[in-house]
Amino acid sequence: MKKLEEYVRSIPDFPEEGIIFRDITSILQDKDGLHLAIDQMQSELDGIDFDVVIGPESRGFIFGVPIAYNLNKPFVPVRKKGKLPCETVEIEYDLEYGSAIIEMHKDSIKPGQKVVIIDDLIATGGTIEAITKLVEQLGGEIVKIVFLMELEGLSGRDKLKNYDIASVIKYPGK
Amino acid sequence: MKKLEEYVRSIPDFPEEGIIFRDITSILQDKDGLHLAIDQMQSELDGIDFDVVIGPESRGFIFGVPIAYNLNKPFVPVRKKGKLPCETVEIEYDLEYGSAIIEMHKDSIKPGQKVVIIDDLIATGGTIEAITKLVEQLGGEIVKIVFLMELEGLSGRDKLKNYDIASVIKYPGK
Repeated sequence: MKKLEEYVRSIPDFPEEGIIFRDITSILQDKDGLHLAIDQMQSELDGIDFDVVIGPESRGFIFGVPIAYNLNKPFVPVRKKGKLPCETVEIEYDLEYGSAIIEMHKDSIKPGQKVVIIDDLIATGGTIEAITKLVEQLGGEIVKIVFLMELEGLSGRDKLKNYDIASVIKYPGK
Repeated sequence: MKKLEEYVRSIPDFPEEGIIFRDITSILQDKDGLHLAIDQMQSELDGIDFDVVIGPESRGFIFGVPIAYNLNKPFVPVRKKGKLPCETVEIEYDLEYGSAIIEMHKDSIKPGQKVVIIDDLIATGGTIEAITKLVEQLGGEIVKIVFLMELEGLSGRDKLKNYDIASVIKYPGK
């Protein structure tokens, strides 16, 4: 049986020279790849007691919703500014060039809820660090963060030292 | 048991005056709402023979991926321009103000494949009409289009007369 890693398409010099882009669409467009990815991420939650799954727009939706569905938990989206219609909390964080603002609905997490964050990739960790701050501002407790892929050369874990993190596929480079 | 419709939060005058925004986050952040939405959309595919699920960024991902997972099919994302790393087909279409360009990977659909399109909402139908053109350009055959919600007052079905369309929740207005 083909291993999950073998479904990932690696594209050199995208979006810019020197970067190897790890493409998840090649996983998704194979039914076995799709199942393997979700099942292996989900298995990182074995034995974890939690209340809600959170995923950032838009690739966090791809993996977060099926896992929430399978484990019978609610799903809370983190979105780019301006897309959520009710009262939100927001945070601005730095990107390589410029900055971004993300939001969550104020009523999406209740104080004391145990939260799992799901995303496709940890690179520098900036987006997930921002999400941890939003969740904690709302009174949530982050019990686990699960990524499909990790670019170890970018040391994203350094920003997330206080959390229990798992990644299914690890790339030593950037 | 609460009905699916009761999980939808309706927000008047968002994103602008006169529009009633139908919020799906209130469905997702309840585990029963999440299950009902996905199960009821999925049941529209009973008896349909198909090869692949397609969903547009980003709310089509929310419903499309769990349905693909449950029915053991591949999932192909439609994305905004510039986000897919390999060779794509693209189409520009009109929005209320301005226009948008969406893309699919060229190798994501094989000629003759039977395609199901999943999205959260049919309003004017412009985005889905554009997707049907991309799918057909790649040689795919659209066998069903399933929406969670339909704004009947915007007559989106008029743009999609040649297709088999289902929507789970119908709102008579705009």
